[in-house]
Amino acid sequence: MSGKPRNILFIMYDQLRFDYLSCAGHPYLETPNFDRVASMGVRFTRAYVQSPVCGASRMSFYTGRYVHSHGASWNGFPLKVGEITLGDHLRRLGMDAALVGKTHMRVDADGMERLGLTRDSIIGARVAECGFDIFVRDDGLWGEGPAGHYDTGPQPYNDYLKEKGYPGSNPWHDFANSAVDDDGDMASGWFMENADKPANIAEEDSETPWLTRRAEEFIASRGDKPWLCHLSYIKPHWPYIVPAPYHDLYSASDVIAPVRSEGERQNPHPLYRAFMDNTIGKAFRRDEVREKVIPAYMGLIKQCDDQLGQLLDFLERSGRLEDTMIVITSDHGDYLGDHWLGEKDLFHEQSVKVPMIIFDPSAKADATRGQVCDALVESIDLAATFVEFAGGEVPDHVLEGRSLMPFLHGEEPAEWRDFVISEYDYSQTSMAEELGVPPKQARLFMVADKRWKFTHVEGFRPMLFDLVNDPQELRDLGDDAEYEDIRRMMAERLAEWARRPSQRTTKSDAQIIAGRNGSDGKGILIGAYEEADVGPEFTERYTGKPGR
Amino acid sequence: MSGKPRNILFIMYDQLRFDYLSCAGHPYLETPNFDRVASMGVRFTRAYVQSPVCGASRMSFYTGRYVHSHGASWNGFPLKVGEITLGDHLRRLGMDAALVGKTHMRVDADGMERLGLTRDSIIGARVAECGFDIFVRDDGLWGEGPAGHYDTGPQPYNDYLKEKGYPGSNPWHDFANSAVDDDGDMASGWFMENADKPANIAEEDSETPWLTRRAEEFIASRGDKPWLCHLSYIKPHWPYIVPAPYHDLYSASDVIAPVRSEGERQNPHPLYRAFMDNTIGKAFRRDEVREKVIPAYMGLIKQCDDQLGQLLDFLERSGRLEDTMIVITSDHGDYLGDHWLGEKDLFHEQSVKVPMIIFDPSAKADATRGQVCDALVESIDLAATFVEFAGGEVPDHVLEGRSLMPFLHGEEPAEWRDFVISEYDYSQTSMAEELGVPPKQARLFMVADKRWKFTHVEGFRPMLFDLVNDPQELRDLGDDAEYEDIRRMMAERLAEWARRPSQRTTKSDAQIIAGRNGSDGKGILIGAYEEADVGPEFTERYTGKPGR
Repeated sequence: MSGKPRNILFIMYDQLRFDYLSCAGHPYLETPNFDRVASMGVRFTRAYVQSPVCGASRMSFYTGRYVHSHGASWNGFPLKVGEITLGDHLRRLGMDAALVGKTHMRVDADGMERLGLTRDSIIGARVAECGFDIFVRDDGLWGEGPAGHYDTGPQPYNDYLKEKGYPGSNPWHDFANSAVDDDGDMASGWFMENADKPANIAEEDSETPWLTRRAEEFIASRGDKPWLCHLSYIKPHWPYIVPAPYHDLYSASDVIAPVRSEGERQNPHPLYRAFMDNTIGKAFRRDEVREKVIPAYMGLIKQCDDQLGQLLDFLERSGRLEDTMIVITSDHGDYLGDHWLGEKDLFHEQSVKVPMIIFDPSAKADATRGQVCDALVESIDLAATFVEFAGGEVPDHVLEGRSLMPFLHGEEPAEWRDFVISEYDYSQTSMAEELGVPPKQARLFMVADKRWKFTHVEGFRPMLFDLVNDPQELRDLGDDAEYEDIRRMMAERLAEWARRPSQRTTKSDAQIIAGRNGSDGKGILIGAYEEADVGPEFTERYTGKPGR
Repeated sequence: MSGKPRNILFIMYDQLRFDYLSCAGHPYLETPNFDRVASMGVRFTRAYVQSPVCGASRMSFYTGRYVHSHGASWNGFPLKVGEITLGDHLRRLGMDAALVGKTHMRVDADGMERLGLTRDSIIGARVAECGFDIFVRDDGLWGEGPAGHYDTGPQPYNDYLKEKGYPGSNPWHDFANSAVDDDGDMASGWFMENADKPANIAEEDSETPWLTRRAEEFIASRGDKPWLCHLSYIKPHWPYIVPAPYHDLYSASDVIAPVRSEGERQNPHPLYRAFMDNTIGKAFRRDEVREKVIPAYMGLIKQCDDQLGQLLDFLERSGRLEDTMIVITSDHGDYLGDHWLGEKDLFHEQSVKVPMIIFDPSAKADATRGQVCDALVESIDLAATFVEFAGGEVPDHVLEGRSLMPFLHGEEPAEWRDFVISEYDYSQTSMAEELGVPPKQARLFMVADKRWKFTHVEGFRPMLFDLVNDPQELRDLGDDAEYEDIRRMMAERLAEWARRPSQRTTKSDAQIIAGRNGSDGKGILIGAYEEADVGPEFTERYTGKPGR
């Protein structure tokens, strides 16, 4: 590895669990290409997302700021205009930032109108796309129902399928995410009973290869200017359905046992109970659901792995492996029935922890290749890492994460964080409705270190897990009197974090220090009683007489 | 009072203490015109500013948001682009918002450049002026020294003085804020020993009458469209100097005794000690300083009162008293030697409490005229009040204050707040330097109810006062073991406040509630196992077969 590092390939999978990779210890799923990147770089084993839900998590990746700071706290909650994005930071350093895939960004249309910004300007287009230049954007959420389409933007993947001859208005659903049943009828991937069937699409036309080819096109099209390419896959996110041969690689016997206990259902925290008892929890507690879905989920990941292999080969052939940082991560995990839950949303490891593998091609990183790092990492650390990789100084009055470069270069960063934070805004969910929680109160905060995981539930008692003695998080100590001191310590950490000056983004610490007493030099002489109290430079100006 | 209410005259004085009005009980200072407004409206006796320093306090008035939310936490810290201002809220309701005077706003030039905004557009000009259309802006801070001018913008007041024939480049300093000594030399108002001398200017040309006339011009020039006029005086802020006859109305015998005790200097909180021992504290502990400054300060207020009288007469003559809400307040107080301090910055009542008088011309307010209200009021309540007065619904996902209209109309608002918050960022001060506090830690938070005033000092022990048993705040209970429970309660209130979703400004609570389960109707069918799990409206679309 000797090329001058200059590009960043920032790969995100959607809903990829941290432990569904062979390098992370999955017993049945072999992912040699993920493992190859891990062997080339550093794999972080304690990487947490800022929120275990697509939109909020991504906005933290793309701004380098906590959800509590950027405010786009759930899917479809617009990122407010004015937020500084990864693209803004990198462009100042001469690096472009392009998108190939999904962001789940919702534009702050009111804010853009208030500031007179329109999408037909370069600036407006970037503001509307959380700072990226769009090579391809497709969120892969082409649901449709009586209330209309979930996503109303351009549909590049559907356009592609139509060009390839797939019929209908929504081949994303009808082919890429549906099978054909025994009667020859469409078997929608929305219904998990169909998860074991092959998607009715040529494998090379399915979402993951399609996006991989687009990324290769992007990279091939680039000249000398450094770039960040956010290759943001739609999969292995639901609908859980995958084309042949991936639909048939795994079966019920490859499904690992659910992490759950009967004890969890006895007197659970009210919020946890509400999540367990929602439609998704009820579905995923059923063995038949897990046994249909998980093999498909594994197949989707296997397809991702194969495509990653193709991409790595492409990078190698084109020389880009010499000069391109590769990052692999996900926006959150997937319960898959663990803890009696499906989807994500709460803070068990299956949901809030993500894969995080970083390959730095520079010689400085040679010493750490193939290493595993168990430092407490937050998803917002990536933005800071990218800024440092691009040659910049991390503006720590804006970016709230820390650069991971020291870990990549075998250095011990000074005063690394003692705890990580994650948040969840359930204000727009049925759980808030059921629990009668008003929107401003429907917020959760996780504080975790290597021993304790504490969840503050606004308006309810907290939850607490001992990650050392109960690594599977089966015993909630949130109302156990014995752990009052621990809970208090964790609550105080949360309070300290919540008080941080997250909005003081227009003054750097260096500017503040340089400005101490700066107004004196500009003749604002507060507290002077007589001329002798100030320097002659002022006396002369303010008395008209020569200085003493 | 029968005119249809439609305008708002939002008058702010700078550094006007809550208790330097005769209606607030000052024993020697008669302010009949302030008192007249109090008799016409409601006087709030527990109105606290969001930060006891000009810039931060004002940005809270102008955004209706806490300092922790808008981030412009000290003088000269730019208000970040994208913050929604009072002007934005009112213009949506058909009301203009104009400035006559001071804001202490610093533009977020980086942010404007990032978004391609320039001052030569209407939108850009408003963003650069915290939402106001500028009739006159003058901050009255024309200090100059070897490091240049403190303020570098247009100088309308200096321009006015030059037109009137006052010589030199900075007649603001040389005449409006300087006297002439016995030798005929300039005696600068920056030196407090000169505070007893008359400013070397015709009274009608001094800052307060000048701004009053500009406000009258503004009001006279307006047609039928409702307006808010922010008449924002520079005085009684330092330099403490006032023209004849006001320089000679009060003397040392009118100076009330300082509120301070020897006990305060024994083992004080380290931060308090640092403030007491700074240049300003050292000056104001001297009797000669108080006896020079306070009579001048009283003279400045008396001049404000006389000008208020002229303005009220003008409003009455022009019919505007029938249809104009009048608000009188200040951005913070002035220690004037109390607690061994000068200026503002800390949270004793002299600094953090302000006058707040509101006259509502509508008939609904007839029942409360002349009343006094002791509810806990925050300065951010004004923005919400103005929105309601202008006929809007308060957007409580953006505005963090509460409308005071119920109090004006004799109604008891539901669930009024239990405590107020104020903040102070001392990162750019000599106190941070002296205490070795890094910029991110140099923050103070006050939490106060009617009994307790608690100050959280990041990195140090807190301070605590019992406002009932120690109304003068002379005994700090911050390290008294007896009050541990109180401190814990106040710290928990602060934590709760700090966790609030202050940045979720792109979704209203109503939108969130309306959106609960909204994605279902758009065909995002998470957790469905088979067709029977969803409605026929989806089965038909997703299977191609007629619904069941």
